[in-house]
Amino acid sequence: MSFSKKRIPKIIQELYNKYKDHDEGTLPTYIPELSRVDPKHFSIAVVTLDGDVFTAGEDAQTFTIQSMVKPFLYGITLEKLGPEAVLEKVGVEPTGDAFNTIKLLPKSNRPYNPMVNAGAIAISNLIPGNDYHDRIVIVKEALEQMAASPLGFDISVYTSEKTMGHHNRAMAYLMLKFGILTGNPEEILESYFQACSFLVTVKDLAVMAATLANKGTNPISQTQIIQPKNVKDIICVMMTCGMYDFAGEWAYTVGIPAKSGVSGGIFGVVPGRMGIAVYSPPLDESGTSIRGIKVFQEMAQMMDLSIF
Amino acid sequence: MSFSKKRIPKIIQELYNKYKDHDEGTLPTYIPELSRVDPKHFSIAVVTLDGDVFTAGEDAQTFTIQSMVKPFLYGITLEKLGPEAVLEKVGVEPTGDAFNTIKLLPKSNRPYNPMVNAGAIAISNLIPGNDYHDRIVIVKEALEQMAASPLGFDISVYTSEKTMGHHNRAMAYLMLKFGILTGNPEEILESYFQACSFLVTVKDLAVMAATLANKGTNPISQTQIIQPKNVKDIICVMMTCGMYDFAGEWAYTVGIPAKSGVSGGIFGVVPGRMGIAVYSPPLDESGTSIRGIKVFQEMAQMMDLSIF
Amino acid sequence: MSFSKKRIPKIIQELYNKYKDHDEGTLPTYIPELSRVDPKHFSIAVVTLDGDVFTAGEDAQTFTIQSMVKPFLYGITLEKLGPEAVLEKVGVEPTGDAFNTIKLLPKSNRPYNPMVNAGAIAISNLIPGNDYHDRIVIVKEALEQMAASPLGFDISVYTSEKTMGHHNRAMAYLMLKFGILTGNPEEILESYFQACSFLVTVKDLAVMAATLANKGTNPISQTQIIQPKNVKDIICVMMTCGMYDFAGEWAYTVGIPAKSGVSGGIFGVVPGRMGIAVYSPPLDESGTSIRGIKVFQEMAQMMDLSIF
Amino acid sequence: MSFSKKRIPKIIQELYNKYKDHDEGTLPTYIPELSRVDPKHFSIAVVTLDGDVFTAGEDAQTFTIQSMVKPFLYGITLEKLGPEAVLEKVGVEPTGDAFNTIKLLPKSNRPYNPMVNAGAIAISNLIPGNDYHDRIVIVKEALEQMAASPLGFDISVYTSEKTMGHHNRAMAYLMLKFGILTGNPEEILESYFQACSFLVTVKDLAVMAATLANKGTNPISQTQIIQPKNVKDIICVMMTCGMYDFAGEWAYTVGIPAKSGVSGGIFGVVPGRMGIAVYSPPLDESGTSIRGIKVFQEMAQMMDLSIF
Repeated sequence: MSFSKKRIPKIIQELYNKYKDHDEGTLPTYIPELSRVDPKHFSIAVVTLDGDVFTAGEDAQTFTIQSMVKPFLYGITLEKLGPEAVLEKVGVEPTGDAFNTIKLLPKSNRPYNPMVNAGAIAISNLIPGNDYHDRIVIVKEALEQMAASPLGFDISVYTSEKTMGHHNRAMAYLMLKFGILTGNPEEILESYFQACSFLVTVKDLAVMAATLANKGTNPISQTQIIQPKNVKDIICVMMTCGMYDFAGEWAYTVGIPAKSGVSGGIFGVVPGRMGIAVYSPPLDESGTSIRGIKVFQEMAQMMDLSIF
Repeated sequence: MSFSKKRIPKIIQELYNKYKDHDEGTLPTYIPELSRVDPKHFSIAVVTLDGDVFTAGEDAQTFTIQSMVKPFLYGITLEKLGPEAVLEKVGVEPTGDAFNTIKLLPKSNRPYNPMVNAGAIAISNLIPGNDYHDRIVIVKEALEQMAASPLGFDISVYTSEKTMGHHNRAMAYLMLKFGILTGNPEEILESYFQACSFLVTVKDLAVMAATLANKGTNPISQTQIIQPKNVKDIICVMMTCGMYDFAGEWAYTVGIPAKSGVSGGIFGVVPGRMGIAVYSPPLDESGTSIRGIKVFQEMAQMMDLSIF
Repeated sequence: MSFSKKRIPKIIQELYNKYKDHDEGTLPTYIPELSRVDPKHFSIAVVTLDGDVFTAGEDAQTFTIQSMVKPFLYGITLEKLGPEAVLEKVGVEPTGDAFNTIKLLPKSNRPYNPMVNAGAIAISNLIPGNDYHDRIVIVKEALEQMAASPLGFDISVYTSEKTMGHHNRAMAYLMLKFGILTGNPEEILESYFQACSFLVTVKDLAVMAATLANKGTNPISQTQIIQPKNVKDIICVMMTCGMYDFAGEWAYTVGIPAKSGVSGGIFGVVPGRMGIAVYSPPLDESGTSIRGIKVFQEMAQMMDLSIF
Repeated sequence: MSFSKKRIPKIIQELYNKYKDHDEGTLPTYIPELSRVDPKHFSIAVVTLDGDVFTAGEDAQTFTIQSMVKPFLYGITLEKLGPEAVLEKVGVEPTGDAFNTIKLLPKSNRPYNPMVNAGAIAISNLIPGNDYHDRIVIVKEALEQMAASPLGFDISVYTSEKTMGHHNRAMAYLMLKFGILTGNPEEILESYFQACSFLVTVKDLAVMAATLANKGTNPISQTQIIQPKNVKDIICVMMTCGMYDFAGEWAYTVGIPAKSGVSGGIFGVVPGRMGIAVYSPPLDESGTSIRGIKVFQEMAQMMDLSIF
């Protein structure tokens, strides 16, 4: 590596300062909890593979993990069922569409990939357990192992999502019709909405990302949590599908496998080097954190992080 | 009218004989009740505006009204709320798609028209009443007035539809998201599934059709049931949207405003002249009774019934 | 008929006066000729089946026939080749889309109907003749017989259309690929652009419409120009497809088989009663004359002209 | 690198032997030249960054470069105009659709990316020159520099493509309408069809791939041909869009930026390590060489070549 990790703190502090007062973007309004956060929140974290943690900004601020949980739900099912069983229910193709696309793959009627909502719902259906209580225990444990930290839960966001999640409900019934979902859709959605409502900080996310960057071994706890071959699959799907209809431009201008969430977080995995996370709530019109994109673009350039 | 109604019995008997042994088509399999009917069932009825009833075949055979209830649900809301209130929630445009199209109108997110499933569900939401019990009482009364006859109810079909209606459920949640539906989607679907499960004979359907052909006055009971201006709207929407993606070819080869149902019935309205119904369960791949189409095409030709 | 034709002159004069100063809508800008017409032009014509001609406004004003030529091109091919041969290349289904839809029918790859551009181009390919010169002679003769009048040609509009018609050219090559078009696409487009560039007045259009309303016999010249069965097919396709994605609402609020053109004309066929034409250049966003729509809606109401 | 290049000859010879008699797949039929090649042709080449060349099978066999020219056309425009000017006319988003998708990006009406036909045609329009002759001289020179070898031209394939390329012609006129193309579409298509008709061997392709893997410096000629930053953009777009609607599964099972062509070739770029090419004409239904996919999947596994 031509780049010394000693420069990281300086770089992220510079980027924090540069974008601190940037106020473009809007808060999501579909649930009240997300529309009421302070748009000024801004934090950056980098975790290297030898476990060094660097942060800038309000790094203690928690936020719901939202869609950023999708790669980990996918990982849980890869570990528990193996890739073939998962591929039978969810594809690995980019959609060219938004996160809530209602489009399913021709012929198989599977969701396109585990990063769109439909795919993550189908993945939730695959997590073993007798009911959604069993499933959420598995998810919680996995996420906390990835973060090497206990994680809180936002009951209020969860309740709102559940009440407002009609689009996801529509997708669930469509997949039930096609036999992609089995069982009670409300129970499955429950698991999905719960998984999205865990609370994380940028540091948590960066540790989780670093665990993927480190072939599944958490650089803090030094525990192997996901097998390397499954990590490879997760990173691959994040690269091709993680940023939805922005995936191409993200690959082009950043080149880091990443996942964004509507709460304003983005985390990125630089294989063999580091995990990165940014938190800033105001979103662009495709639902991605605006300062998040900018920080990633500049970091990728400054530290030559693109996988291409 | 250049055509004497005395010829009707002969014509329908001839058509009955001609197609009696025709066995093309398949039964729907999505619910067991529809897949188990006798495919040989075949009956034709014509009711003129002065109340003459002509039938051929097993005219006592009942079957569920299914989508053929849609024009009447639409009529009920036109009567109770007026066309403007209805148009606010459901459009009047053909879709070019199948009955279960998931497509909604651009901008307004309304269903395209009251004849596709999504539209009929939105229409069900507009029928007044505190709950689905209130609503079904209104529907039952209206249908029986149209048929001038009490109508049975197929509890078994209803239960099956309710259990299997995931696609309709998906549509309902999508419309809930867009504010087209208000209230509990399961309650609204309940009303819709119930409305589809009333039992009719070809004679019932032909009387209902004749009531529309007679500007809303039932030719048997001589009661005005729907106002003429609303009848005009119903007939218009039947013409442009009643046969789904087959609408253009139906207009071209038959030219009679009509509605088909998955149970194998089709009824047609010849304004100022007669109502016609055919029942034969085997369907073509777009879900329309094959003998039904043939009988309508020939009758239209023989009696010059096209409105064009 | 409960309506005396003596009232016609009064009604159209009233409507002319009512909308004379209405200035909503915009001129099309894709070719300079259409963007430079005087938006104040406004004329109305009605021709009854016994050949009475009533007009209001600047009835001598000519304009290019544009898409209003499509029903007649369709008619020419029905007469020359028969409906089966035409149906093999062009469907009769509404699209639910705009006039320039790039969508073709599944499986057959035919254009949806003869009223969308793709369909009219395919129809142009069917007009017999060795080259576009032969074809335009046939078209000109047919149009003049329909109008019972010689028709001028706007060479400047024609040249512009030809230069700017890239979308139509794209459709033509797509159809060539699928074997729907045969021969040289530029030659076929030539015929189509030429056919659109004939000059008409509202009176000409109303006579043409009245000829269709009169089962193909021109009420002025008393010549049979199209066979009744072909007239029926033309009227049917006008009803279901003539107003593109506005077809449903037009059927609902007007109920008269009609065709609009981007030059600002609309003509309507009231079978057994009359032909109607309105000319007013400013268009709504779907490309239809705004005053044209209003006049048709009110006339249909006042004279009970809806076919439903 | 944990992998010794000494193993390469053995590996590719093993894979050649393993699949030599595999005969799945069909030849393309849209032009006679491609349908008449010998389906048994099969060759594999690997070129390392220090210029070692390894081949297996009939490595002297030439075939037309077809869509595999697209990354290089893209590279030429990046070099000559810079990425901003190119991005203005062609996006970098995956489509989720097939190579000949007619879909353009919302709002901008640009083709989705330089790897679909529409994108490559728009790219062809950007290659500088007064006419198609000027342009093809530039393309030829660039390709030969990439291959470090003179390249032949298949005049017969070129003529056929030109005669049959109606779909591409349709796309060209559509883009002309939207101002994405400027100038004479036939001239632009000429350049595109010509570029697709150069003849290569697997060795040529593997050298071209190795040049990309080596940041733009040809490992044979040691000449810098494309700037590293432009190489990065090419590789990125190949990864996200190079395999069309198969991109996700390719990333997942192979993980090597690659491009396929309808002639049966595939080349892949393993950054910092090697260029790979396989040639075998029989295609799967999405138009990709079947043995090509298999060989890449196994090589990626055996030599751990995935970038993920």
